[in-house]
Amino acid sequence: MDAPAVSVLGPGAAVLAFDVGGTDTKSALIDGDGRLLGLRRTPTPIDAADPAGSVVGSLPVLAAALLAEHPGVEPSAVGLSVPGLVDEETGTGVFASNFGWRDAPIRALAETALGLPVAFGHDVRAAGDAEHRLGAAREFGDVIVLAIGTGIAGAIILDGHPYSSGGYAGEIGHALADPHGDPCTCGAVGCLETIASAGAIARRYTAASGIEVRGAREVLAAAAGGDPVAASVWNDALDALADALARLAAILAPEAIVIGGGLSQAGDALFAPLRERLDARLSFHRRPRLVQARLGDDAGLLGTALAARDLAGRRGQEDAP
Amino acid sequence: MDAPAVSVLGPGAAVLAFDVGGTDTKSALIDGDGRLLGLRRTPTPIDAADPAGSVVGSLPVLAAALLAEHPGVEPSAVGLSVPGLVDEETGTGVFASNFGWRDAPIRALAETALGLPVAFGHDVRAAGDAEHRLGAAREFGDVIVLAIGTGIAGAIILDGHPYSSGGYAGEIGHALADPHGDPCTCGAVGCLETIASAGAIARRYTAASGIEVRGAREVLAAAAGGDPVAASVWNDALDALADALARLAAILAPEAIVIGGGLSQAGDALFAPLRERLDARLSFHRRPRLVQARLGDDAGLLGTALAARDLAGRRGQEDAP
Repeated sequence: MDAPAVSVLGPGAAVLAFDVGGTDTKSALIDGDGRLLGLRRTPTPIDAADPAGSVVGSLPVLAAALLAEHPGVEPSAVGLSVPGLVDEETGTGVFASNFGWRDAPIRALAETALGLPVAFGHDVRAAGDAEHRLGAAREFGDVIVLAIGTGIAGAIILDGHPYSSGGYAGEIGHALADPHGDPCTCGAVGCLETIASAGAIARRYTAASGIEVRGAREVLAAAAGGDPVAASVWNDALDALADALARLAAILAPEAIVIGGGLSQAGDALFAPLRERLDARLSFHRRPRLVQARLGDDAGLLGTALAARDLAGRRGQEDAP
Repeated sequence: MDAPAVSVLGPGAAVLAFDVGGTDTKSALIDGDGRLLGLRRTPTPIDAADPAGSVVGSLPVLAAALLAEHPGVEPSAVGLSVPGLVDEETGTGVFASNFGWRDAPIRALAETALGLPVAFGHDVRAAGDAEHRLGAAREFGDVIVLAIGTGIAGAIILDGHPYSSGGYAGEIGHALADPHGDPCTCGAVGCLETIASAGAIARRYTAASGIEVRGAREVLAAAAGGDPVAASVWNDALDALADALARLAAILAPEAIVIGGGLSQAGDALFAPLRERLDARLSFHRRPRLVQARLGDDAGLLGTALAARDLAGRRGQEDAP
């Protein structure tokens, strides 16, 4: 069950980290050397009647198992990240379509359930923070980290600090791409993620060709193999992404845009045409470097652990004599 | 020649302020009570052979006239704002299409020419700062101030502080609006300001109707009077603006967007349909308040004076025993 213990975090406080997704929850115990112990995926319990209570209720069970396996490690804080709209400052899950909660005081609930201080955050911003502190965004002060998978979401780091605007910023997947486009599950029309997410690429290909695919990877392979429907769907996605990145360059002028998530695993098949199309759309603008994310699938969990360590550090200072 | 002296700035250091535009330069002496003395517009001297030298060379002449008229006022710093790409930190005019300079050390040139410390800035960010400290953006921590006139430019204020990314941020007028649109003077295609600036509205109406107009105001009047060509041009501008504001809401989620510049003088004819169209484009996003700028035409000069006072304050502290 255990993945091999790795230490990308370095020395620091021992903490528990939970990265709760719409399908799976990743959890791990991080020891004082920064090793991820017991890293595992378990199904996220979703209960429409009590969504926050159900998710929070699963945490002590996971914690007990991790602590039982590693009796020498005593965590002093917990990191907990969830998707949707998250207000880190107030510790509130403002909204999450996968779960159905609204303005749920998740930090307070988790602190009561676990008996430890909890750093509560947003999954994609946690991943962005990890890329900024440990990964591909490390050398940049103004940088946007985009996760392109089932949907598209972004973490915005400006002047070295995360910018979240009470949880509402960074919704690049729900920025308008095509005013005459498809309805988005969010209720708006023509959002970027209806065209350019890995999920949309697969969906649009199936709708246009009648051929079922397991994901965007198969569509890219079909496009490379000469399938004109796949090529057209992929072309639309690249154009919509390039349009979106060009707008980010005009508005925020980041030094770099780091792209992670499932689609980024296409590597040069994504980055080469995207660089070319972005370049063609810019004039005097600062050209952002397009960089592949480095921390992979565990970026969210690593960022969550970092937030827990930050919290443990602050608590430690407050408690010092 | 003098406008009536007004004090919107309040007490502080006496400073000189120059807001250099592509056509006119506004200058004034600000006294210790914050009154604008001798506020005037003079033609900006443009010399392709020595653009920075020519502009900077005009400043001591303007300064001498202002000081001669108000012999009791002794400025301790100067504010100087220009359009284009401006790096406030290094004091560099990176690029300005109206002037033709590239990487000109304008702050250093102006300090030598005037013998006073110079706060060098960007005209639209100066106006945004004035609206944030004294005007319509005052109550907001995350706010974008848009100037819609001949072109479109923005000042971005996040967590209460201006964000400029070395001068490249806020170029909302040069963010992509229509990938199949008209070429922009900047070299890109389909920039927002090719559709939605006051200049574009007049230009597009004349191109479509063959009727010469003096500005967007006449096009709005024609649209209100039932001219279908004018209505179509105005409709395109409103749609492009609403698209752009919806994207800003998704990406940055500002509490408010303040709109100034010539087009904002249309008042409800602009704000009412823009609010409606923006609202129709958003779902879960934070809805920004759309607010008309309050400081009018002098916002840039006021922001420039504020920057000079900030500088005088810092110098005063450094000099204190």
